[in-house]
Amino acid sequence: MGISLGPNQYGKAEVRLVTVRREGAVHHLRDLTVSTALRGELEATHLTGDNSAVLATDTQKNTVYAFAKQQDVGEIEDFALRLGRHFVDTQEKITTARITIAEHGWERIPVGGAPHDHAFSRSGGESRTTTVTVHGDRAWVVSGVDGLTVLKSTGSEFHGFPREEYTTLAETDDRILATAVTARWRYQGSTDIDWAKSHQEIRRTLLEAFATKHSLSLQQTLYTMGEAVLLARPEVAEVRLSLPNKHHFLVDLSPFGLENHNEVFYAADRPYGLIEGTVVRDEAEEPGPAWTEAVL
Amino acid sequence: MGISLGPNQYGKAEVRLVTVRREGAVHHLRDLTVSTALRGELEATHLTGDNSAVLATDTQKNTVYAFAKQQDVGEIEDFALRLGRHFVDTQEKITTARITIAEHGWERIPVGGAPHDHAFSRSGGESRTTTVTVHGDRAWVVSGVDGLTVLKSTGSEFHGFPREEYTTLAETDDRILATAVTARWRYQGSTDIDWAKSHQEIRRTLLEAFATKHSLSLQQTLYTMGEAVLLARPEVAEVRLSLPNKHHFLVDLSPFGLENHNEVFYAADRPYGLIEGTVVRDEAEEPGPAWTEAVL
Amino acid sequence: MGISLGPNQYGKAEVRLVTVRREGAVHHLRDLTVSTALRGELEATHLTGDNSAVLATDTQKNTVYAFAKQQDVGEIEDFALRLGRHFVDTQEKITTARITIAEHGWERIPVGGAPHDHAFSRSGGESRTTTVTVHGDRAWVVSGVDGLTVLKSTGSEFHGFPREEYTTLAETDDRILATAVTARWRYQGSTDIDWAKSHQEIRRTLLEAFATKHSLSLQQTLYTMGEAVLLARPEVAEVRLSLPNKHHFLVDLSPFGLENHNEVFYAADRPYGLIEGTVVRDEAEEPGPAWTEAVL
Amino acid sequence: MGISLGPNQYGKAEVRLVTVRREGAVHHLRDLTVSTALRGELEATHLTGDNSAVLATDTQKNTVYAFAKQQDVGEIEDFALRLGRHFVDTQEKITTARITIAEHGWERIPVGGAPHDHAFSRSGGESRTTTVTVHGDRAWVVSGVDGLTVLKSTGSEFHGFPREEYTTLAETDDRILATAVTARWRYQGSTDIDWAKSHQEIRRTLLEAFATKHSLSLQQTLYTMGEAVLLARPEVAEVRLSLPNKHHFLVDLSPFGLENHNEVFYAADRPYGLIEGTVVRDEAEEPGPAWTEAVL
Repeated sequence: MGISLGPNQYGKAEVRLVTVRREGAVHHLRDLTVSTALRGELEATHLTGDNSAVLATDTQKNTVYAFAKQQDVGEIEDFALRLGRHFVDTQEKITTARITIAEHGWERIPVGGAPHDHAFSRSGGESRTTTVTVHGDRAWVVSGVDGLTVLKSTGSEFHGFPREEYTTLAETDDRILATAVTARWRYQGSTDIDWAKSHQEIRRTLLEAFATKHSLSLQQTLYTMGEAVLLARPEVAEVRLSLPNKHHFLVDLSPFGLENHNEVFYAADRPYGLIEGTVVRDEAEEPGPAWTEAVL
Repeated sequence: MGISLGPNQYGKAEVRLVTVRREGAVHHLRDLTVSTALRGELEATHLTGDNSAVLATDTQKNTVYAFAKQQDVGEIEDFALRLGRHFVDTQEKITTARITIAEHGWERIPVGGAPHDHAFSRSGGESRTTTVTVHGDRAWVVSGVDGLTVLKSTGSEFHGFPREEYTTLAETDDRILATAVTARWRYQGSTDIDWAKSHQEIRRTLLEAFATKHSLSLQQTLYTMGEAVLLARPEVAEVRLSLPNKHHFLVDLSPFGLENHNEVFYAADRPYGLIEGTVVRDEAEEPGPAWTEAVL
Repeated sequence: MGISLGPNQYGKAEVRLVTVRREGAVHHLRDLTVSTALRGELEATHLTGDNSAVLATDTQKNTVYAFAKQQDVGEIEDFALRLGRHFVDTQEKITTARITIAEHGWERIPVGGAPHDHAFSRSGGESRTTTVTVHGDRAWVVSGVDGLTVLKSTGSEFHGFPREEYTTLAETDDRILATAVTARWRYQGSTDIDWAKSHQEIRRTLLEAFATKHSLSLQQTLYTMGEAVLLARPEVAEVRLSLPNKHHFLVDLSPFGLENHNEVFYAADRPYGLIEGTVVRDEAEEPGPAWTEAVL
Repeated sequence: MGISLGPNQYGKAEVRLVTVRREGAVHHLRDLTVSTALRGELEATHLTGDNSAVLATDTQKNTVYAFAKQQDVGEIEDFALRLGRHFVDTQEKITTARITIAEHGWERIPVGGAPHDHAFSRSGGESRTTTVTVHGDRAWVVSGVDGLTVLKSTGSEFHGFPREEYTTLAETDDRILATAVTARWRYQGSTDIDWAKSHQEIRRTLLEAFATKHSLSLQQTLYTMGEAVLLARPEVAEVRLSLPNKHHFLVDLSPFGLENHNEVFYAADRPYGLIEGTVVRDEAEEPGPAWTEAVL
């Protein structure tokens, strides 16, 4: 009976990188969490402990820091492309590099109405993300947003669902709809893209679609958000969304002689609905390894 | 040998309350986490399980929801004062009520440049807080802010500290200074205060002091922040600040032949410095039970 | 230009279920977190908001609770198989159900040396898990363990890795090796398996392999752990492991005139190495959808 | 109008310390999180940035590591006493040191039935804690336990509470009672105590009291637990307990024609009851600064 090594990867996760770039007295701050993962001919270390192909994860970390010094980080997609290309080009046994970056936002503290030169405050829990996969001569870019929490206080219905043995949920034509958007979009065509503008426009499009779509289900909202991105941004092949339905339950105030006209809600933690879906352009390029997790 | 009941309290923690107030088509959203705690003559339940004085924590939760319907929540300080007053006035054995509220911010999603009527996005990890203590006829208000994360990329030095047997830290005249501000300020005089404006001005003052003070130690920054609040806001008796020193270490790039002129930093998780201090007006009113935790 | 719905699923996540089964005065406690996800012909709700095929996530939650009453939960794999089979068999448009369960352990509190009938304490942060995928007449079972944190204080080396431009890590022949094991193993053959015994034996095998393997790399330890499971358990087709390298750095005590012979370590949080790999039986059954995430 | 510095302290929080002690081939592992805080004549750094009295928090961290090498850590109370004494005795302006330590448990991995020499697994989420305050010639020790999660599936009632305008909770004579115990006990008399045995016996006493007390309220259980410790352990002056009431709600299965005889429960996250209380020996020594937080 034979046993073999299957898909595998290794790397350094969550390298915390903060950079300061000076433009005279004006400082520019960047705050990134960078993870690297390498794949290739790695049987030796698994089977015999021969590490001659194993670029140490400590070295991968050092490379992140050194690259941040040698050239301005720029957009996270470009930084990830440079890192991934470096690992694949310099390590003979490494065939694929997968670089994931989350960028955390900061804004300038206003002082006397003017933005301060070198003092900043964190601008919320949302992160801009990218996962770049470099394999051979090619590269795939999937960017996204994490933790974009949104809520509509009306304009959301839910009815017409099956009523069977275990169904107790009442139909509603007016409920709170709230979710924390995790979005991922796959780029196609080239990597010569204005990443910052594309991110900004996609984010704006997602928010506007969420806000303006009269929703009959969170699935419908999801599809509308993804479709809106594809309609607006030709550089995007595909959008994937994971939308927890953060339930806001109407509190029953009738024991106290009070009517609750969608005014007072209990925001529940668990369980939550979880709606996940893909919206894809019909002539999209093949995704290749863009979405492929090596293992778990 | 005798054994007795010492300080104690009980209540409902982290009641998640979301309210929607309609002004024509325009919705106003509030998102609060409310905790209640009651103190008083509570020996019976502890010693014999006689619950005749124990207003159930479930009832306390119901009261929060009912009050949110019966009158607009308003500022969190006023809502906490109404709740605390209610418990003390209606429960014979309850002498003290302590209501803690954290408010989570939301902003309107812009659609076509205009703020949407009923669609919102979460505005960051910061919370506005209050802890109101009602005892007898009196009330004490301590408000604050949690999770206000700030960073200065220059304008911070640290030197002149003792060099002894276990000291290895180099002196520096230019470092990143970063912290997540937890601030609490105690009001005095009356509870007839424009809470919203006071909060807004204190928050602005804290940020400006952090930004503009050339810092020789985080302690000096702390004192400056508290002092600035007291100088600007006569309604405040005392400011307490807890400032973790979120270390950003300069990465040593010399092994790679690179100089690091305060450009590339590693943001560390643990350990962290923790600087805590109080700045108080000399003629401040006595704090009474404003700061007193019952137990832990 | 056409746009279409791609892979998607929806369900209720993290239903917290605790059950008590009585055997005379002796109570048996179970503590589960159950997530359900359904896939199938779900275009209508995405495209038009027609929910006639959308078994509500609230109904899915109710089903979990009702099933827990109608028949003893039993092993989590069997409970997940029953739930998944139910959804696929009763919902015409649902072709696939994916049920994920984590079981949290409790042990009896010893009183006077004897285990108590109905008082329990939580037995640590580790969870036993399963993900069951039911599609048509078939079912796939992937079970595992989360949060099994282990450490070896010797018997681990790391050397022979490439030394290039960005390499500074020293080689070592004696280091601490620590990780928090996330393991998943795919069953094959049938679903008529003694799940409890299989889990217990696999867990024991993983721990013994970690403890006894003299390690030249965490990759080698990973492979050894997976291989040991396949050698011992014919019912397992494949093992997947995700092993964060929880770095324990030797503290440099030389500034204090002290030598540190692998005695005093700093346990770092981030970054961490992340080693992921698959060990698979050569004649393993095809995995089908066992590992397939619908979206993200 | 004068403004002054009030109570303050500073230190290094969450120093992660892991030590290995060798006894031939047998290794002994310790895993601690140590926080230090110093108080004293610290006006200068706050008011002018003069750091001549500010033993750097980095130095405090170094001291923790160096002390761990110079003498076996021993019980956490003794380690904290040594650290606190050192800071007060060597720093002229430091009058008080407060050292907090949490110890995380590990057990040996059994291999072939025998405990392994140098391989360990984490034994759960519970921590043993101590907070030692050294001031002048004196020292106060408060030890405890965090995260001891317990549950009784019967033997708990709750009734007889006030029924007023906002009360809807039904009375019950059989409910699940679950909590995560945070306990702190203050030692008196001397610091020449068998800390390990005392901790073990107090923990056992807390668990047995929780298990065996037929409970009419969580307050009653709390008092019983504290009283049992004081009755059994003369070295303890006072016990403080913070007990979240982790609600387990009976699921209403009646819509499905099913009766739920305390068999199927929903474990809720928030809100939760929070019961806090102190049980104190009548002739207890004065606590001095044992419980005093400097600021927040």
